[in-house]
Amino acid sequence: MARILITSGPTREYLDPVRYLSNGSSGRMGSALAKQAIARGHDVVLVSGPVHVDYPLQARIIRVETTAEMAAACMDAFPACAGAIAAAAPCDYRPRQTMSQKMSKQSGPIKFDLVETTDIIAELGQHKSNKQWTVAFALETHDGVRRALEKLRRKNCDLIVLNDPTAIDARRVRTQIIDPAGEIEPATGTKDEVASLIFDALKRKSLL
Amino acid sequence: MARILITSGPTREYLDPVRYLSNGSSGRMGSALAKQAIARGHDVVLVSGPVHVDYPLQARIIRVETTAEMAAACMDAFPACAGAIAAAAPCDYRPRQTMSQKMSKQSGPIKFDLVETTDIIAELGQHKSNKQWTVAFALETHDGVRRALEKLRRKNCDLIVLNDPTAIDARRVRTQIIDPAGEIEPATGTKDEVASLIFDALKRKSLL
Repeated sequence: MARILITSGPTREYLDPVRYLSNGSSGRMGSALAKQAIARGHDVVLVSGPVHVDYPLQARIIRVETTAEMAAACMDAFPACAGAIAAAAPCDYRPRQTMSQKMSKQSGPIKFDLVETTDIIAELGQHKSNKQWTVAFALETHDGVRRALEKLRRKNCDLIVLNDPTAIDARRVRTQIIDPAGEIEPATGTKDEVASLIFDALKRKSLL
Repeated sequence: MARILITSGPTREYLDPVRYLSNGSSGRMGSALAKQAIARGHDVVLVSGPVHVDYPLQARIIRVETTAEMAAACMDAFPACAGAIAAAAPCDYRPRQTMSQKMSKQSGPIKFDLVETTDIIAELGQHKSNKQWTVAFALETHDGVRRALEKLRRKNCDLIVLNDPTAIDARRVRTQIIDPAGEIEPATGTKDEVASLIFDALKRKSLL
């Protein structure tokens, strides 16, 4: 069967040795996708940020902390994979500078510059061969379908899974699986159920 | 015996509904202190940020997310307590504004203002009665003892536990327990062992 790259969990971007930017991604969607892939006979390379979730033992797990580390691990693993599913929520901004020592409290506000990190799934979409495919996730608080479809096209993805912010760290999720033609399939249920529907969609599109 | 307030874990300060500032505090020191207090016959009120650690069932646990929520819960619980041990690592800065919708990626850097949050242990130190006591923790990457002692005095604490950044999310810790006279007791071991040494110090100082 196929080898599939799955990204999972959040990343962390450090302001100093202690403080960081992150988000509440639990890694449970990535874990559900990995289990589903393995149950369907595929090999899994799982690139994961810091999470407390249990991943299937059969997956090859690469642990990373920052978005740059996640991007490097993905670019390294992707050429040997049939496709990639980006379930991670990597930080898309990082502090321009990381202080080498813990900042002391100062009087008055601290001004901070945040700069963009690598867009991992866009990078994979740009490098994929004719035979490879990519699936992105989009989390939107408003104007979801329009934004998701715009992301799918800009990032050269084969499918995008749109979910709303209640998906973060939740056990049941409400998503829509969207294809490049703008066709929308609602997918709601536990993360295991939604993972299964995503693999069904990949099969229906003859990607797997 | 006594009722003791213990704070534990990190807090989160949101930039928007998804992205937040935080740190890697695991809550294991807070959990070790709660277990030690209960083993010595005390009641425990545990105010905890988001963590995956197991807390003792006998503790009354108040779950919070932001530093403002942790401060409010502590100010509420403290008057009925003999003392407080601040093992949490609450964010001491928060974004000046929290966006109500998820920020979209913009071209170019984002500028951010961070403003100070409430210093919880300093606030408790300011409000404590003659009979109450407070213990702070300090995490310093450089010039530790001088900075810790300055914090102890400024925050009107009875003891301060200084640990270095390797303490974050580590199972063994190297700390120094410092009193207002500048006396230093090295305390190294598992978090359970260090928790026990902190309670020994409280007893030796006739605080408990």
